Amino acid sequence: MPFADFGFAKIDHHRELRKGFPEVIYCAGKTPSQIKTIAQNLNKNKSILLATRAERKAYNAIKSAIREAKYYPSAKMVVARPHKVRSDTGLVMVVSAGTADSPVAEEAALTAQAMGSKVERLYDVGVAGIHRLLLHSQKLQQAQVIIVVAGMEGALPSIVGGIVSCPVIAVPTSIGYGASFQGLTALLAMLNSCAPGIAVVNIDNGFGAGYIASLVAQQYKPL
Amino acid sequence: MPFADFGFAKIDHHRELRKGFPEVIYCAGKTPSQIKTIAQNLNKNKSILLATRAERKAYNAIKSAIREAKYYPSAKMVVARPHKVRSDTGLVMVVSAGTADSPVAEEAALTAQAMGSKVERLYDVGVAGIHRLLLHSQKLQQAQVIIVVAGMEGALPSIVGGIVSCPVIAVPTSIGYGASFQGLTALLAMLNSCAPGIAVVNIDNGFGAGYIASLVAQQYKPL
Amino acid sequence: MPFADFGFAKIDHHRELRKGFPEVIYCAGKTPSQIKTIAQNLNKNKSILLATRAERKAYNAIKSAIREAKYYPSAKMVVARPHKVRSDTGLVMVVSAGTADSPVAEEAALTAQAMGSKVERLYDVGVAGIHRLLLHSQKLQQAQVIIVVAGMEGALPSIVGGIVSCPVIAVPTSIGYGASFQGLTALLAMLNSCAPGIAVVNIDNGFGAGYIASLVAQQYKPL
Amino acid sequence: MPFADFGFAKIDHHRELRKGFPEVIYCAGKTPSQIKTIAQNLNKNKSILLATRAERKAYNAIKSAIREAKYYPSAKMVVARPHKVRSDTGLVMVVSAGTADSPVAEEAALTAQAMGSKVERLYDVGVAGIHRLLLHSQKLQQAQVIIVVAGMEGALPSIVGGIVSCPVIAVPTSIGYGASFQGLTALLAMLNSCAPGIAVVNIDNGFGAGYIASLVAQQYKPL
Amino acid sequence: MPFADFGFAKIDHHRELRKGFPEVIYCAGKTPSQIKTIAQNLNKNKSILLATRAERKAYNAIKSAIREAKYYPSAKMVVARPHKVRSDTGLVMVVSAGTADSPVAEEAALTAQAMGSKVERLYDVGVAGIHRLLLHSQKLQQAQVIIVVAGMEGALPSIVGGIVSCPVIAVPTSIGYGASFQGLTALLAMLNSCAPGIAVVNIDNGFGAGYIASLVAQQYKPL
Amino acid sequence: MPFADFGFAKIDHHRELRKGFPEVIYCAGKTPSQIKTIAQNLNKNKSILLATRAERKAYNAIKSAIREAKYYPSAKMVVARPHKVRSDTGLVMVVSAGTADSPVAEEAALTAQAMGSKVERLYDVGVAGIHRLLLHSQKLQQAQVIIVVAGMEGALPSIVGGIVSCPVIAVPTSIGYGASFQGLTALLAMLNSCAPGIAVVNIDNGFGAGYIASLVAQQYKPL
Amino acid sequence: MPFADFGFAKIDHHRELRKGFPEVIYCAGKTPSQIKTIAQNLNKNKSILLATRAERKAYNAIKSAIREAKYYPSAKMVVARPHKVRSDTGLVMVVSAGTADSPVAEEAALTAQAMGSKVERLYDVGVAGIHRLLLHSQKLQQAQVIIVVAGMEGALPSIVGGIVSCPVIAVPTSIGYGASFQGLTALLAMLNSCAPGIAVVNIDNGFGAGYIASLVAQQYKPL
Amino acid sequence: MPFADFGFAKIDHHRELRKGFPEVIYCAGKTPSQIKTIAQNLNKNKSILLATRAERKAYNAIKSAIREAKYYPSAKMVVARPHKVRSDTGLVMVVSAGTADSPVAEEAALTAQAMGSKVERLYDVGVAGIHRLLLHSQKLQQAQVIIVVAGMEGALPSIVGGIVSCPVIAVPTSIGYGASFQGLTALLAMLNSCAPGIAVVNIDNGFGAGYIASLVAQQYKPL
Repeated sequence: MPFADFGFAKIDHHRELRKGFPEVIYCAGKTPSQIKTIAQNLNKNKSILLATRAERKAYNAIKSAIREAKYYPSAKMVVARPHKVRSDTGLVMVVSAGTADSPVAEEAALTAQAMGSKVERLYDVGVAGIHRLLLHSQKLQQAQVIIVVAGMEGALPSIVGGIVSCPVIAVPTSIGYGASFQGLTALLAMLNSCAPGIAVVNIDNGFGAGYIASLVAQQYKPL
Repeated sequence: MPFADFGFAKIDHHRELRKGFPEVIYCAGKTPSQIKTIAQNLNKNKSILLATRAERKAYNAIKSAIREAKYYPSAKMVVARPHKVRSDTGLVMVVSAGTADSPVAEEAALTAQAMGSKVERLYDVGVAGIHRLLLHSQKLQQAQVIIVVAGMEGALPSIVGGIVSCPVIAVPTSIGYGASFQGLTALLAMLNSCAPGIAVVNIDNGFGAGYIASLVAQQYKPL
Repeated sequence: MPFADFGFAKIDHHRELRKGFPEVIYCAGKTPSQIKTIAQNLNKNKSILLATRAERKAYNAIKSAIREAKYYPSAKMVVARPHKVRSDTGLVMVVSAGTADSPVAEEAALTAQAMGSKVERLYDVGVAGIHRLLLHSQKLQQAQVIIVVAGMEGALPSIVGGIVSCPVIAVPTSIGYGASFQGLTALLAMLNSCAPGIAVVNIDNGFGAGYIASLVAQQYKPL
Repeated sequence: MPFADFGFAKIDHHRELRKGFPEVIYCAGKTPSQIKTIAQNLNKNKSILLATRAERKAYNAIKSAIREAKYYPSAKMVVARPHKVRSDTGLVMVVSAGTADSPVAEEAALTAQAMGSKVERLYDVGVAGIHRLLLHSQKLQQAQVIIVVAGMEGALPSIVGGIVSCPVIAVPTSIGYGASFQGLTALLAMLNSCAPGIAVVNIDNGFGAGYIASLVAQQYKPL
Repeated sequence: MPFADFGFAKIDHHRELRKGFPEVIYCAGKTPSQIKTIAQNLNKNKSILLATRAERKAYNAIKSAIREAKYYPSAKMVVARPHKVRSDTGLVMVVSAGTADSPVAEEAALTAQAMGSKVERLYDVGVAGIHRLLLHSQKLQQAQVIIVVAGMEGALPSIVGGIVSCPVIAVPTSIGYGASFQGLTALLAMLNSCAPGIAVVNIDNGFGAGYIASLVAQQYKPL
Repeated sequence: MPFADFGFAKIDHHRELRKGFPEVIYCAGKTPSQIKTIAQNLNKNKSILLATRAERKAYNAIKSAIREAKYYPSAKMVVARPHKVRSDTGLVMVVSAGTADSPVAEEAALTAQAMGSKVERLYDVGVAGIHRLLLHSQKLQQAQVIIVVAGMEGALPSIVGGIVSCPVIAVPTSIGYGASFQGLTALLAMLNSCAPGIAVVNIDNGFGAGYIASLVAQQYKPL
Repeated sequence: MPFADFGFAKIDHHRELRKGFPEVIYCAGKTPSQIKTIAQNLNKNKSILLATRAERKAYNAIKSAIREAKYYPSAKMVVARPHKVRSDTGLVMVVSAGTADSPVAEEAALTAQAMGSKVERLYDVGVAGIHRLLLHSQKLQQAQVIIVVAGMEGALPSIVGGIVSCPVIAVPTSIGYGASFQGLTALLAMLNSCAPGIAVVNIDNGFGAGYIASLVAQQYKPL
Repeated sequence: MPFADFGFAKIDHHRELRKGFPEVIYCAGKTPSQIKTIAQNLNKNKSILLATRAERKAYNAIKSAIREAKYYPSAKMVVARPHKVRSDTGLVMVVSAGTADSPVAEEAALTAQAMGSKVERLYDVGVAGIHRLLLHSQKLQQAQVIIVVAGMEGALPSIVGGIVSCPVIAVPTSIGYGASFQGLTALLAMLNSCAPGIAVVNIDNGFGAGYIASLVAQQYKPL
């Protein structure tokens, strides 16, 4: 059987074959005891383990099953047995607009790192002070894929997309108030970017951005 | 009576006293004959006449009442007896993101000009090629008020707002497709700008932007 | 380097040059320790310091770095070293529709004051008792720019805009219930105002309104 | 049988007993031949006939069945055998904000008239020139029920509601552009009015407003 | 001066003259001390006092100023010196769809009663068991105005509107889950009712419904 | 191969095995020549053929491939080789609220008939004249499944659902104006029905309703 | 009288006759004492009792009236005197996409079971590992009706609908974040399914799905 | 100057340096004469030329300036001097759900091809007949990046994303009706995909998907 059946969950042991990466535990809406059972079962493969949207309770449940699990509270992530960062892949750059976007940016960065990608961070370079970004243009042009994290008006991916030639993964965040509508404004803005080479993930979905960015970076083969 | 009563319309002759500018004819939803009656009546004051959202039929109706009326087809505006541009007021700069935003930008520029403001235009400097804007930084810093017109992700006002010290009036346009939702995305983005000093008018409302910008510029008194 | 880099934040020391006003701390989504670090660093310039959306914890963090910081709990603002109010600029009038709109109105008024503008307040003059507003018509006509703060149906800016000749900055608030949708109704109403000379800022964005209004008022030079 | 069954339609002859008014033909989505059949059948009662949203084709179909049917093209209504206006009922006042709102206002006024109510019209008294309305305050206070028709920001019902003691029926119209969203903004604004004594009907639903206003007016018995 | 000015509030003593009813205190967003000040000032007229959306703290504040104030916790209303119910006015019937709609229905009923109207209640007669309503058809037909309160699909006003000849005031409630969107579904349904004679107030706005219904009922003069 | 591959289309010949019914041609967005190719290929199985959203051009294309194809213009359907109606299955009743809902109701009825179900129609029994429906209560109770088609406020499924014990399939239509938002209101209302036993299909999706209703009816075996 | 009248509630004793199933207590928005009164009164019929959205307090209230009431905390349901599961009806299969969807799936399964249907569960077979579902194809094809519960993108009903010939009842859940908008995305996706034979209930409405599925299954008579 | 200034347009000749690809002409909202001017100017670089959303008029305008321009009417694209397809890059696979999605899929495929990528197409493999997709699993696993184009419920990217290890670019289309809301449903579904490795572009934005997919594929270096 390509999965383990616990009634409330069917753990997809086949996923690593298909996807090159095992199942990831999305902790929201699961009880600590369900999380522990899933972690224990996934642990049998001795592969990397990622858990997202993990409150401390969820971490404790995983920790009791997998000793080496490490917790990143700002990103609400648990990681065990991360892949070794490989030097022969592309560089993933994680760019964020403001300090308040950091948790989402960190979720993206940690995910890509855990998947073995080289990651660099460039935080708080939002468009209200665009020189902070432009001063790093050269650095940006060295990346093979760039994750851009922004809330409010979500303009940063367009600016980055206008000055680099690599793919850009845009992540809207729920930072803002009033007519930001919990990130809807940033999401819509990013989808409508006038700069080509940009694709978008769900609001606050740092994990999703880190995952696809890492896939892109792994295709890159430096000469 | 401070207004003329035609049943279907009560023309507000008192407005020029209160607002410093007479009633403007919003042509949408009015018949040519209604428009002509209103234009004729407003004409008695021999003051400036503006008509917006004017199809050619509307223009013809006005023309038959007011000979000197001039038509600007791309902006769909009719102007008669514009105010003389006064050199002792501030400069209104009209900046647009793309070629397709020009009709709205022109409506703004023509309105401000007709109200007597000095106007300069800087078109097609959208964020996908931000150097086009930055090369004009000095020019932008000379303005007393800047109107920024953009569709799609509506990011341009944030960039402009980040590099100038004067007020910025942002105008979202309905240019875009898919999740631009006829300008809603640009509107929301502009309302959520992270750069201070920006206020927003309705989608495609070039007239409204030109009007308030002109009011701002008229307060400026060069030394 | 035109900014100080703390990893989680790049403090934009260049902003005062470009914008005529230093960076403002938007406290929401930042930890007290991040806020303190930013405040300390901004303090080196000995310029004015504003912090918005500041809970008491944020205030305490700033206070520990900048002694003279003062807290305005209803507006959730922290101000240190405010600009001296200059008599040679225009008058900013802050008008609010109801008592419940006061926190937003105060955020606007305090911002404009801190930036050196003369400010007068006219609160609780909503459209259900329009005579309360009309009795102050003369006062309104003396202002160089008017901030109008309203929730619910957001009609007040249209009324004010109909009787004054200066620019009006409209601020929708989240006051209301049911189909007010946390201020969306007031926002939409203000964007669709039939009175010319009005521009709009984000829901509950008193700071943004005070900032742009102050910019407008500073252009005015009394004879 | 309290209704006539034509397969595609079951004509409700019982309605006049229950509601005091016969079925009204809503023409949108019906073919001319369906409309004719319904009109013919309703005609047997020799009661009043109203048809709404009637294009000229619909009118012709009705005319061929009911000779005395009269067409009001701006309101897109057909009326036959209207009730006699009764002097012993209350006065229905129909107030509109702008010239472009007239078709909806006329639908309301014609409906109330056809139902036997005294109707007065006060058009184009929108809030941008509020003196036009206030000059008619006394007239407004003589009405037993007031219908207020407005598009754009939909502020007029709040103003009227603030100065009269009778019930106000508010009708949002689809007049406006951009963020008016075909009348949604006016609808939301009217629902959130801060003035008590206001209830709202659907966007552009002049018929519905005229109907309920007429019911209210018929309850009034002058001494 | 037709109002008392407390800075944070301008109490509209003129309202009773214009509207036939004094200002009502909307407690949401006001501090207890603001509420007390307003209540004390309104008390000088010795007129009726209503306060809505009143938590117990608000009640206590009012009570300390006006002894005879009475609290209705389910409706969150405070009433002092209610008008005497007059027998020579029409009957207001308050109909609700489900038990969970009672707080809103009570707010409507208490408002109308306090304004001097005869009120009868008919609760929990929702459309899933329509016979419960139809059994009361005769009672319904005796009313001069009917308030219909419903959440979820908001269908009840259409049914009532189909069987009575008096005006119907529909009140959507936020009762429901999922795609009820806090009452938006019921609101939209009521606005689109196929039965004529219905007008709608804001979601959960029992007060507004009671107020306008009472105005309608007061016009009725039994022979 | 379980499908025929034409590049632009992969015709699913396996579907009849899995689903008990072959692929149906959804004509919208397909060219007549594409439709003809698909029809020809499906024709090889000599099974029933249904095409929906078929303009006359689409019908002509199918007709040229399948002679016996029959067109139902109001429902915009093409049917060839319909299943014989079987007497040993349940009765599908199709109920509609208004005359304008007929095209959608017919699409539902024709689909269920073509699939071999017994179908009865009961049209124009909307809630404004509820007696028209209640007079048919007995008939309704004989059905094994009822399709209820309604636009505007979409209340009819709740009423039907309250008086029958069989499953109800609700179909919102785009009939209505203003705040009906092209059927969104009816859709939301039906999803929030307080009567149990109701499930909903997409706006104007008569085909979907007829299909699932027919599946339900085929399970019924009369004794 | 076909109902018991407690003022705040009219208990519909007639419902079991009409619908084949007694009134169900929807606990949300009712006080424990109201719930107890309703439970006691319903208890007189000695029929099955279901209560949904029951917090523990609601359960305790019911328990004090009906001893044999049993609580299912994850589904928030109370059941007393469930119908005996009958072997001569169809099989209801409850399929869920993820572990976090279990509470809604259980509400559906428990409802159908309590109504006497055979129920099987197949949980955590979401589309990211579609082989988990496909391995159970045969089992799925044995069902007479399938309930499919999913949040996030809500794709599972389409997949199931593509491989079975029985009716599918789709239940969107509020599981997800960002642009899932509390289940709106899953709801919309299910309504737009390209697979025929699917109808949808409200977000998180497991009860509604179990109810209609049970009605469908009861029509099935195995040979 | 890094751009050519035509007033209405500033052609960004610098873009090819920054982005590795010259400016693309988005034809919507531009006049044929504007398009021709831009095309002529871009032609000077003798680089590749792409124009999107090109009606035949736009094509003719380009053709008159650039002889070798070729028109693809279904995709509404104009291409001149496409890059040679390079064998040493990754494979871009374009997968579409239905025949009606072909124009968008073709826009994506043509863009990637013009940029020099190897492209394969797999059309009409939507989830209602999932075997059509699964039969091509091996082919899918050979791609380096997959573009998945779907309307209606937008489920296909999740299925593809569940069985491949390369990045997936999802493109929602406006195909569908009723509650598909012109592609909004598919867009939301794709953003909420439970399968990792997916990013999304704007509704109907085949160009954007082809562009970023080509960037990804160019990073791939086969051994």
